[in-house]
Amino acid sequence: MIFSMKRVFSGIQPSGEIHIGNYLGAIRNWIKLGEKLGRDAIFCIVDYHAITVPYDPEALAKRTFEAALVNIAAGLDPEKVTLFVQSHVPEHTELAWVFTTQTPVGDLTRMTQYKDKAARQVSVGAGLLMYPVLQAADILIYKADTVPVGEDQLQHIELTREIARRFNGRFKEIFPEPQAFVDPNAPRIPGIDGKAKMSKSVGNTIGLLEDPKQIWEKIRTIPDDPARIRLSDPGEPERSTVFTFLKYVAPPGMVQALAEEYRQAGVGTLVIKRILFQEIMKILEPIQARAAELRRDPDYVWDVLMEGAKRVRPIAQATMEEVRQAIGLLRPRS
Amino acid sequence: MIFSMKRVFSGIQPSGEIHIGNYLGAIRNWIKLGEKLGRDAIFCIVDYHAITVPYDPEALAKRTFEAALVNIAAGLDPEKVTLFVQSHVPEHTELAWVFTTQTPVGDLTRMTQYKDKAARQVSVGAGLLMYPVLQAADILIYKADTVPVGEDQLQHIELTREIARRFNGRFKEIFPEPQAFVDPNAPRIPGIDGKAKMSKSVGNTIGLLEDPKQIWEKIRTIPDDPARIRLSDPGEPERSTVFTFLKYVAPPGMVQALAEEYRQAGVGTLVIKRILFQEIMKILEPIQARAAELRRDPDYVWDVLMEGAKRVRPIAQATMEEVRQAIGLLRPRS
Repeated sequence: MIFSMKRVFSGIQPSGEIHIGNYLGAIRNWIKLGEKLGRDAIFCIVDYHAITVPYDPEALAKRTFEAALVNIAAGLDPEKVTLFVQSHVPEHTELAWVFTTQTPVGDLTRMTQYKDKAARQVSVGAGLLMYPVLQAADILIYKADTVPVGEDQLQHIELTREIARRFNGRFKEIFPEPQAFVDPNAPRIPGIDGKAKMSKSVGNTIGLLEDPKQIWEKIRTIPDDPARIRLSDPGEPERSTVFTFLKYVAPPGMVQALAEEYRQAGVGTLVIKRILFQEIMKILEPIQARAAELRRDPDYVWDVLMEGAKRVRPIAQATMEEVRQAIGLLRPRS
Repeated sequence: MIFSMKRVFSGIQPSGEIHIGNYLGAIRNWIKLGEKLGRDAIFCIVDYHAITVPYDPEALAKRTFEAALVNIAAGLDPEKVTLFVQSHVPEHTELAWVFTTQTPVGDLTRMTQYKDKAARQVSVGAGLLMYPVLQAADILIYKADTVPVGEDQLQHIELTREIARRFNGRFKEIFPEPQAFVDPNAPRIPGIDGKAKMSKSVGNTIGLLEDPKQIWEKIRTIPDDPARIRLSDPGEPERSTVFTFLKYVAPPGMVQALAEEYRQAGVGTLVIKRILFQEIMKILEPIQARAAELRRDPDYVWDVLMEGAKRVRPIAQATMEEVRQAIGLLRPRS
C-alpha cells in the first residue's frame, strides 16, 4: 500500500501532551511515511479544528507550538516532511465554505462522531457538525490521495470522498478521492489502567515528555495478572497489562524469556515493571533530550513552521483558484 | 436613526434581474445612505451566499458583474460608496468558520428562513443552515453598526448580534452589535399580479432593464378594481393595483386627481395604465441609458469592483487578525 501513495495528509491535534500511545500507534508510522514521501508527507497542526470544542484561548498558541516541538522531538524530520499550522493557510476555511454549500445537512448529522459528541452536550456547537467538512478541505486542498487515520475517522474520510466525488461531478474534475490508510500493524496501546485505550480524556496516559520519576510511579500502578496474588503464584502474561506494554517496547526475545519465567513464578512483577520502565525510557530518553534541545532553540521550531506554511500555501492557493473558477465566481482582474 | 449610523453593510444578491420592487423598496434608500455615509456605506455582492442554493456555475460570474452594473446604473455612486464582490475578500469565510465554532447548532436550525427553505427540499444543503453565520461574518468583519434589511432578515440580524455578543464576552470586545434598519417608509411593492409582493421567484416583476414594450405589455395585465366592469362603472382606487403602483411612482397631486376621476368613472383603466407606464419609464429611462453606457464601458465597472475590494480588504484583514489573536491562534512570525 505505502508505495502507491503520492501525497499523504495527516492532521495533528494541537496538544503538547502527546503520549506513548500516540507515538507507538501513529507518530512512529508517520516518521516512516515521511522517509518514503518527503515533502509530500504533509503534517498539519489543526488549530482551526481545536476550537470546535471548549478550549482555553490563553493556552492554544502554546499548545500548537508544543505539538510541533514534540512531533519533531519524536522523530518527525522537518528537513524531509512538511509541517505547518492550519490557520497559517486560511484557504482551508474558504474551501470548507465551498464544500459546506455542496454537502447535505443529513450527511453531517449522521456522522457517528458528531452524534456521540452531540449526545453528551446540552448545546452542540455548529463547529462539531461542520468539523468533517473542514477536514475534507484540509485533505483535498492538497489533493492528497492518502490519509492515515484510526478506525474512528473512517466515516469522515468516506465523507471526504463523497464531497470530492460530488464536486467533481457537479463542477469539474479537480479532486482525487483520497483513501483512508488504517495501518493494520498499528498497535492499540492500552491505558495504564489496563482498561480503555490510552487516551488523554481518560487520563490513563504516559506522556512522551513526562518526568521519568512520574513515569515510574505510573508504571507501578499498571495492573498485573489479577490471579497472581503471591510471588510464588504462577502468572499468565496474557492477563497482564504489564506484558501488553512490554510487547510493544521490548525486544521479542526478552519478552518471551520474561513471559516463561513469569509463568513459572520465577520473576516478580516489580522486576518486570522495572524492565518495562527501562525499555520505555530507552524510547523516551532521546525524545526528551531532543525536546530539551528544541526548547533551548525555539527559533528552529518557528523556522520549521514558517517554512512549512510557505511551502504548502501556494499549493492551497492554486487549488482554491481552480475551485473558484470551477464554481463560476467572478474572478478579479488585475 | 440615519444620523447615528457610522458604517452600514448591505448584501446584494448577484442577480442582474433587479426589478422596480428592489429599486423602490431598497436601492433608492441605499443611494441616500451612500450620500450620507460615503465610503462607510459598504455594498457587497454576496456570491458566496448565492452558491448555497442550486445555481448555474456558467452564469454566476456574469450575474455578479451584472448586479454591479445594474446597481450603479440605478444610482449607487461608486465614487462615493464602496461596492465589491464578497469572494474577492476571502477573509469573510475565515471569520465565518470562527463564528461557526461559537454558534450552537440549535440557533441555526431554529431560523425561520432555514426552516421554510428546508421544508421545501428533500435534501437540504448545509450552506442554507450556515448562511446566517457567513452573513454575520460579512457584517462584523467591517464592524458595521447598521444593516438595512427587510423584515424577513430581522431574525438573522438578531443572530448576528448574538454572535457578536457571545464572541465579545468569550474572547475580547471586538465587535459592535449591529442594528437592523428596516426603513419604515420603504414601500412594499406588489407584483404585477396584484397578489404577492413583487418577487423574482413569483415571476410578477418589472425589471429595471426590461424592454419598454415588454413593460407596457406587463402593465396592461395589472389588475384593476374588479368591481369596475364597464367604463361607466365608478372605480375604487383602493381596490386597484394600478393605483397602488401609481402612488409609488407618480406625483401625489397627479395620483389624487386621477383617483377622483376614477371614482366618478371619468377615466378609463387603459388611460391610467398608459400614465403609469409613462411615470415608470420616467424612472427607468435614465437607469436604462446609464446601463447601456456602462455596457459600452465595462472597464469602468471592473475598476469599481477592483477598487472596492482593494479598499475593504485591509479592513477585513485587520479585523481577522484581531480575531485570530483574540481566539488564541499561534500567529506566524516574520
